[in-house]
Amino acid sequence: MRTSLCDTFGIEHPIVGFTPSEHVAAAISRAGGLGVLGCVRFNDAAELAKVLDWMDGNTDGRPYGVDVVMPANVPTEGQAVDLDKLIPQGHKDFVERTLLRLGVPPLAGEARAGVLGWLHSVARSHVDVALDHPVKLIANALGSPPPDVIERAHEHGVLVAALAGTAEHARRHVGQGVDIVVAQGYEAGGHTGEVATMVLVPEIVDAVDVPVLAAGGVGSGRQVAAALALGADGVWMGSYWLATDEYTQSLGESAMQRALLGATSSDTVRTRIYTGKPARLLKTRWTDAWAEPDAPEPLPMPLQNLLVTDAHNRIQRSADPTVVSMPVGQIVGRMTEVRSVADVMATLVAETEATLTRLGGL
Amino acid sequence: MRTSLCDTFGIEHPIVGFTPSEHVAAAISRAGGLGVLGCVRFNDAAELAKVLDWMDGNTDGRPYGVDVVMPANVPTEGQAVDLDKLIPQGHKDFVERTLLRLGVPPLAGEARAGVLGWLHSVARSHVDVALDHPVKLIANALGSPPPDVIERAHEHGVLVAALAGTAEHARRHVGQGVDIVVAQGYEAGGHTGEVATMVLVPEIVDAVDVPVLAAGGVGSGRQVAAALALGADGVWMGSYWLATDEYTQSLGESAMQRALLGATSSDTVRTRIYTGKPARLLKTRWTDAWAEPDAPEPLPMPLQNLLVTDAHNRIQRSADPTVVSMPVGQIVGRMTEVRSVADVMATLVAETEATLTRLGGL
Repeated sequence: MRTSLCDTFGIEHPIVGFTPSEHVAAAISRAGGLGVLGCVRFNDAAELAKVLDWMDGNTDGRPYGVDVVMPANVPTEGQAVDLDKLIPQGHKDFVERTLLRLGVPPLAGEARAGVLGWLHSVARSHVDVALDHPVKLIANALGSPPPDVIERAHEHGVLVAALAGTAEHARRHVGQGVDIVVAQGYEAGGHTGEVATMVLVPEIVDAVDVPVLAAGGVGSGRQVAAALALGADGVWMGSYWLATDEYTQSLGESAMQRALLGATSSDTVRTRIYTGKPARLLKTRWTDAWAEPDAPEPLPMPLQNLLVTDAHNRIQRSADPTVVSMPVGQIVGRMTEVRSVADVMATLVAETEATLTRLGGL
Repeated sequence: MRTSLCDTFGIEHPIVGFTPSEHVAAAISRAGGLGVLGCVRFNDAAELAKVLDWMDGNTDGRPYGVDVVMPANVPTEGQAVDLDKLIPQGHKDFVERTLLRLGVPPLAGEARAGVLGWLHSVARSHVDVALDHPVKLIANALGSPPPDVIERAHEHGVLVAALAGTAEHARRHVGQGVDIVVAQGYEAGGHTGEVATMVLVPEIVDAVDVPVLAAGGVGSGRQVAAALALGADGVWMGSYWLATDEYTQSLGESAMQRALLGATSSDTVRTRIYTGKPARLLKTRWTDAWAEPDAPEPLPMPLQNLLVTDAHNRIQRSADPTVVSMPVGQIVGRMTEVRSVADVMATLVAETEATLTRLGGL
């Protein structure tokens, strides 16, 4: 199947894959989709530059994009050490107490820096680096980027996408110059609103005159075909790539993958504990702890993520699948084995085409 | 478009319409779908018998069905007066205080009986009456009906459908003899689970070997086509018929219709305040009041509904759109005008066929 999205980006399949792993992103692009590399984990712009150089050498000249995180209404600045002062001691105590109770040991002195990609200055450095590379798309995970960022992207011939959880958001994004709207439904992993994909996608398609990607609940060809039926020009998939060989190769985290493979579609929860804004995570003993009566209210972005960064490192190191802290959508129930990106893409495309043929017969 | 569902029921379109209004149900069947009359409001079986007689005279010999409410795990009995003793005074006080604050006047002495259709004995009387009529389908809104009810339906050549919010529920229903599963997604109105339609439908299709209807988020032909893409044999629509001329004719309630027409897809909330089990309602000052810190926890089924029945009558009488208490799905955002059932059906079918043609072109 081909849609206008294929022509826009020069890709074979209208499947955009978001991932924090350069190995996955490159493999998605090589397999005929559009790989989009999440940048939030790069505190150091030079590190991102090195990774994008690697992308250039490993995408066979196929197009790819990047995803930055620029909160529309939270132009937060400051160093981690300053921000740390804004975090109440009671919250820190709760995190420490909870990790102890869950059997997550402390790190042996090798504390890592928190994620700073939420800060505008850091996200802007990501944009600068990206525009020095042949990226085709800059997506913003939290709405419209600032007007000057959109303008600079356009000057470089780079399209800008923004995630939207309501038709009103989508209209606002397009009014600010965004070229593509990612309609992110309730069932999606990570930051997500309340309106489900089935309802959200046609609403946004009807509200704006730019291409719309359906996000949330897509992990099979039937779901790709459904997204196209709803009027989307393609799909935006994030969670599904977590169960790929390339992800393992890139970022390891086998406890996380084991946890995902064992989860059903009912094993996720939408909560503010990851970033301060509602995001869907795998439901584990860690998310359960934050739902208990003694748990504090999560802090606003970006404080909440700074609060739990060290906990995330400890959790990851502990390799216990029952305390994983990981954004993932309800599609996790369909993630039952680890396969190569090429295999996932081939299966998606074949099932989509079979579905379109079946529908044609009705 | 035709699916196996059309042959199973002898209907033109694979569109099943659930509604508490006999005028709407009959019109859906006359328009080529399968009208399913909700029975929970009939405390008196004789009243239901009269209405089904009317259906027989007004469906032009087209098939129709009924929907009963038999809680799988709550075989509650007793008269309303006994059950009333189980309702804490604090809950009654909260309801009274809230209605006063919202400006909802008391009724002038004409208190009406609470809904008793939740009780097994009453729901069984609905089944008895239905089996005396040429119904083609008995649906149960709360899972599998008891085995003897399924058996009796089958003896009468009547199929049994059950709503399911997870694949596990669906498997259990089919194991107990249910013929059709209604996969009810998060975005649906009324009782609903956490898993969204996009994810739920293919999961249930893969889990059971009986026809599956997609419910939740369907109000346009694109959504019907998406449901078919997901592997459903048809759709189950409830909310959308609330904005029809026939509904107005049957049950009046213009304040409710006005409230629905003005709502967006973000204006619903999933809450236990209607029946004691999670159900999606229109978000109004009434649902907001139950989310405030001073609100008590909703009671279990069937007590919660008995608690609020009188409030519902008062709210309905007050005709204030801002305090409506009404189950409706996120599709309410697409309900922007009141049309005839025949017009709604014609639009649905035309858009579905146009969508299937468009998809065939990809």
